[in-house]
Amino acid sequence: MIEAPALDVAQWFNTSQALALSELRGKVVVLHAFQMLCPGCVLHGIPQMQRVHAQFDGDDVAVIGLHTVFEHHDVMGPAALKVFIDENRLAFPIGVDQPDGHGGPPRTMRQYGMRGTPTLILIDRQGALRFQQLGQVDDLAVGALIGQLLAEAPR
Amino acid sequence: MIEAPALDVAQWFNTSQALALSELRGKVVVLHAFQMLCPGCVLHGIPQMQRVHAQFDGDDVAVIGLHTVFEHHDVMGPAALKVFIDENRLAFPIGVDQPDGHGGPPRTMRQYGMRGTPTLILIDRQGALRFQQLGQVDDLAVGALIGQLLAEAPR
Amino acid sequence: MIEAPALDVAQWFNTSQALALSELRGKVVVLHAFQMLCPGCVLHGIPQMQRVHAQFDGDDVAVIGLHTVFEHHDVMGPAALKVFIDENRLAFPIGVDQPDGHGGPPRTMRQYGMRGTPTLILIDRQGALRFQQLGQVDDLAVGALIGQLLAEAPR
Amino acid sequence: MIEAPALDVAQWFNTSQALALSELRGKVVVLHAFQMLCPGCVLHGIPQMQRVHAQFDGDDVAVIGLHTVFEHHDVMGPAALKVFIDENRLAFPIGVDQPDGHGGPPRTMRQYGMRGTPTLILIDRQGALRFQQLGQVDDLAVGALIGQLLAEAPR
Repeated sequence: MIEAPALDVAQWFNTSQALALSELRGKVVVLHAFQMLCPGCVLHGIPQMQRVHAQFDGDDVAVIGLHTVFEHHDVMGPAALKVFIDENRLAFPIGVDQPDGHGGPPRTMRQYGMRGTPTLILIDRQGALRFQQLGQVDDLAVGALIGQLLAEAPR
Repeated sequence: MIEAPALDVAQWFNTSQALALSELRGKVVVLHAFQMLCPGCVLHGIPQMQRVHAQFDGDDVAVIGLHTVFEHHDVMGPAALKVFIDENRLAFPIGVDQPDGHGGPPRTMRQYGMRGTPTLILIDRQGALRFQQLGQVDDLAVGALIGQLLAEAPR
Repeated sequence: MIEAPALDVAQWFNTSQALALSELRGKVVVLHAFQMLCPGCVLHGIPQMQRVHAQFDGDDVAVIGLHTVFEHHDVMGPAALKVFIDENRLAFPIGVDQPDGHGGPPRTMRQYGMRGTPTLILIDRQGALRFQQLGQVDDLAVGALIGQLLAEAPR
Repeated sequence: MIEAPALDVAQWFNTSQALALSELRGKVVVLHAFQMLCPGCVLHGIPQMQRVHAQFDGDDVAVIGLHTVFEHHDVMGPAALKVFIDENRLAFPIGVDQPDGHGGPPRTMRQYGMRGTPTLILIDRQGALRFQQLGQVDDLAVGALIGQLLAEAPR
């Protein structure tokens, strides 16, 4: 088992308290790493996450957005992200990946070895990293992945 | 466990031998009951089954079409179905549900208590009927259902 | 000006009387040649014609379907077509292209030199053939073509 | 004839020189007023403008984007817009509507009496304002509008 690295988040939206993967044991976690000005994220990934969020019971599946800004930092800061979230009426928790302080890929992105956005990550009920893919994954495949992890008994 | 009723099929397409659910133990069976002139089947259900067939390994998931003609029998006979299959380049096995001989719903349709088309049915690796729904089911939900059944160990 | 050849139709649906292009002078005619078991027709062309029919005023634009069966005649006869029309709730007039009596392309199809289905044909307010294309034409292009012909003054 | 008000633009992208409607006489102008963080613009309007730009000859149809920021000014400035344009590979000219200096709707937006974004505006070959609509307009309707204006002879 490869334990999913912890989320290093500078600021959260849509949640009253910081989320930690360690506290989500028992749930399947669908982590969507995106940038608010990445077309593949906006046109495909984010709408898909809205569908995932609407489809599954929050007691079973936790959908989390992770804003992994690795370019154009000046125009994708938290204030811009907040407008993006509000305008798109995103309801699931979204965290700002911790900047590395030098304008490079932020810390969680680096920990996971992500190579771009969107990246879809699935973490099982025990906290293991089970799937990570850059680019578009279609609904049927995403559903199957979630379904398989849902079927596994919690520890 | 509710064992899925046997398929009562008058004629098969896209398979060299008749299929029996009892011989598909160990696989998840995705059964799509349709009529070739039912718009919901043609515009949604059949394309979805093509995606399911392309997405999953045939060793794990068996996609089967079942032509459950319960109306307009004269224009949806086997010869017409064959043209439909060929023109749409459907590659998965398709069976003609056994007519009841009196122009009513055919026998498998009746056994399952289906109320119309399209109807999506999922049968687990042990042959149990696990899901049956009339109408459109979106890809995310279909994927999740298949994924959950795939995760269950064969007997 | 190339006058559009007359429609040679064996049987009409969705109209109380036979339609003749000569009586449609003053309107833009959108003629959609299709076969009820041609996937490109069913999945793209027919839904597009429904949109065209809904979009434009019937006093300006006449949408006509033409069932140009050139293969599999036995399963695409008028009885099957009637079920297709009813099930898809098509509301525009649809004519059965006159069979040639020898199992080849029907007469109107031959007159226009159509090479397959779907074929989209546009006829202007004066009865001139202005556009004919095999295959899918996207909505923007279809709209522009209709718009251009609408702008031309009736004779 | 209602002459289309002049564009009051603070900064242009994708054009080496400022555009003026008065210099576009002879062309049909498709003006798309948007905000880069307006979901209806990003998911519908902008992709539609890309299709319009690809469909029509630039000698006949001028597609122009107008960034009419009337809210959240701080996160939709020209630097952010430039990233949006680059990431989405938008190739048509886009102007930043002139701010009113008080955080309200910008000047061109106000001149046209636009009530929000996206707003689609069509200007004919003679410079007359012929169509203005807030919200989504489908491709068939947009095509028809453009087609009708294209058919009108330049003065």
